[in-house]
Amino acid sequence: PPWQAADLTVLDKEQFFEELKRLYRKKVLPLELASKYAQFHSAPLNPADFEAKPMVLLLGQYSVGKTSFIRSLLQGDFPGQRVGPEPTTDRFMAVMHGPEPRLVPGHALAMQADKPFRGVASFGNNFLTKFEAAEVPAPILRNITLIDSPGILSGEKQRLGRDYDYQAVIQWFADRADLIIIMFDAHKLDISDELRIVMDALRIHQDKIRILLNKADQIDSQQLMRIYGALMWSLGKVVNTPEVCRVYIGSFWEHPLKHSQNRFLLEKEKADLLAELDGLPQNAVVRRINELVKRARSVKVHAYLIHYLRKQVPTVFGKSEKQAKLLQTLPREFVACARRYGLPLGDFPDINKFRARLGEVKDLR
Amino acid sequence: PPWQAADLTVLDKEQFFEELKRLYRKKVLPLELASKYAQFHSAPLNPADFEAKPMVLLLGQYSVGKTSFIRSLLQGDFPGQRVGPEPTTDRFMAVMHGPEPRLVPGHALAMQADKPFRGVASFGNNFLTKFEAAEVPAPILRNITLIDSPGILSGEKQRLGRDYDYQAVIQWFADRADLIIIMFDAHKLDISDELRIVMDALRIHQDKIRILLNKADQIDSQQLMRIYGALMWSLGKVVNTPEVCRVYIGSFWEHPLKHSQNRFLLEKEKADLLAELDGLPQNAVVRRINELVKRARSVKVHAYLIHYLRKQVPTVFGKSEKQAKLLQTLPREFVACARRYGLPLGDFPDINKFRARLGEVKDLR
Ligand SMILES: Nc1ncnc2c1ncn2[C@@H]1O[C@H](COP(=O)(O)OP(=O)(O)OP(=O)(O)O)[C@@H](O)[C@H]1O
Ligand SMILES: Nc1ncnc2c1ncn2[C@@H]1O[C@H](COP(=O)(O)OP(=O)(O)OP(=O)(O)O)[C@@H](O)[C@H]1O
Ligand SMILES: [Mg+2]
Ligand SMILES: [Mg+2]
Repeated sequence: PPWQAADLTVLDKEQFFEELKRLYRKKVLPLELASKYAQFHSAPLNPADFEAKPMVLLLGQYSVGKTSFIRSLLQGDFPGQRVGPEPTTDRFMAVMHGPEPRLVPGHALAMQADKPFRGVASFGNNFLTKFEAAEVPAPILRNITLIDSPGILSGEKQRLGRDYDYQAVIQWFADRADLIIIMFDAHKLDISDELRIVMDALRIHQDKIRILLNKADQIDSQQLMRIYGALMWSLGKVVNTPEVCRVYIGSFWEHPLKHSQNRFLLEKEKADLLAELDGLPQNAVVRRINELVKRARSVKVHAYLIHYLRKQVPTVFGKSEKQAKLLQTLPREFVACARRYGLPLGDFPDINKFRARLGEVKDLR
Repeated sequence: PPWQAADLTVLDKEQFFEELKRLYRKKVLPLELASKYAQFHSAPLNPADFEAKPMVLLLGQYSVGKTSFIRSLLQGDFPGQRVGPEPTTDRFMAVMHGPEPRLVPGHALAMQADKPFRGVASFGNNFLTKFEAAEVPAPILRNITLIDSPGILSGEKQRLGRDYDYQAVIQWFADRADLIIIMFDAHKLDISDELRIVMDALRIHQDKIRILLNKADQIDSQQLMRIYGALMWSLGKVVNTPEVCRVYIGSFWEHPLKHSQNRFLLEKEKADLLAELDGLPQNAVVRRINELVKRARSVKVHAYLIHYLRKQVPTVFGKSEKQAKLLQTLPREFVACARRYGLPLGDFPDINKFRARLGEVKDLR
């Protein structure tokens, strides 16, 4: 889009988000409502979805240091934190900015219109009791929100221990995150099948994924090379793109480095990672624009499609019979509609999903 | 085999090889001759094949530092060496021990019974003019022989520039090598399609392959991590085993390290690689035994098979008709022969190759 050429860094972000919200409310939302977009795709956006700070999602097997990583970014504690060598964090935690430390339970969080978590309500009560926000006045949280997650366990524990859809929750956060950091422990490196499944599901978010090889100061530089090499060896096969994933090597907790052989490297890597976090708010502007454009395109096609189908459904008699028949002829309708209104077929929704939704809609009109 | 349990390091190697040679000459060779083994598989072994020092084959794209690596092991020059940033080495060079520096041209080399290179004669004149031995009195060569190779070029150059079967020659040396070192340049890392093909063909020698990321002192430790990571990322896909290939990181030439950030690492890695080279002669004993056992098994099955087929061919009339018929029924004969003499079918040769050879043999008797 032509506006990417403008220098967005000089823009006032607040004003920008206001303008995006206005555009959405005036131009896109009415079409969404008129064409039942929510029933086919996703619920209308909230103002909070525009204003939300960039989210950083932390993932990894248990005990790799996710919670300690957050503490080191905050340079202090946060309410509800639990750190330890056994699986400790048992819930998803949104670590957010607030005037003073406090915990907000999941049920309350999912109700707040000014927080971007209304969507999680759909994961049900079991999940909401395992979801919390921790508010702290740490400076870094003025720019970003961190999402701590319970460690990915292996085998039975993963499946039995959790009474909500862990995979779907991860996916929900990943969809909304601006950065996904997958952490590994240089001490005990292995990629469990469960982690592999998670990474596989996140493949579409490749560009947002960063790897962090944590606790890298605990071993000497030759061991570190071996471990790092083994990690890249396996990652290359899991991610399976020719482009190499950015892997940060570091040690993020309050203690000083143990082996100083790698000091130079670890300090540079830390600086790089912090710089990337610092840059998120700026990039978020571009990302939000792109997302709105993407959504607007999808809404436009949807509205034409619904309009086209509606024209074929009689107003009074034989409505449902005709609607049922349309389910059969859908592939043909897609092509005809695309040709009629000059829409690219590539912008059309997945036909099977669409058919399923259409089957659920009682009255298209 | 039970003898692997014995402590081979205390054995007198000279005596050992004598004994192996004796065993081969008395027990295996007569069977090979009686069953026309050479026409079906490979020529009889020479004494030189038993005595030959462990061979280390150096491979890699041009200018990665193969020739410089050899110089650094010798701690000095060798006749015929050519070092430079453009493709320099234009021939295969066996760098061997000799009382004083001299060059032995390929034609002469392929004639010498006391050298393990008689087999290369089959690659023809074009190859023999591109093959040489350099003899030098360097101490390390008392234990091993180094094979320098022309760099793997990419694209047209690889195909057009060489008037012998490069791939087959590499394969020949790789079959006989005790260690294959594939070198990469930390400065300009890429795995060309041609290199990929070579590595693919060497897959059966996985256990002998080591990777060397050379010139690693030319870049700082953060860059080195990136390069090394990218190398492992791609190698994992080319080699495609879950076990990680051993990658040495180093800088092997006469100059001191440029960046000293990685001194600790590079020195440890160098020590490890040299220790592995030092250990080759001891391991060679085990390897030679294993190879002889493997060959003996193959000869045994072959001899039974020929015996079994011969019994079905009449002595005087209708010989060739019957032999031709056997070509058709070969799969059945294999199974019958295995059952008759209690031989594992897994030890039988590739049936298509065997059939092709059998077709060439005029008179089986
Ligand atoms: N950089 C580090 N170097 C060494 N040890 C660390 C480092 N960071 C954390 N640890 C230790 O590792 C253990 C696990 O840390 P932490 O609880 O932060 O991991 P986690 O990934 O949040 O685990 P869980 O998935 O169970 O919540 C703790 O004992 C912690 O002290
Ligand atoms: N460890 C090293 N660090 C930096 N430069 C090196 C190193 N080793 C060799 N070089 C330089 O790299 C260039 C290529 O070296 P060399 O000729 O040994 O490579 P090669 O792999 O034998 O190439 P070819 O395949 O053409 O024979 C030379 O200019 C050499 O000085
Ligand atoms: Mg935790
Ligand atoms: Mg060379």
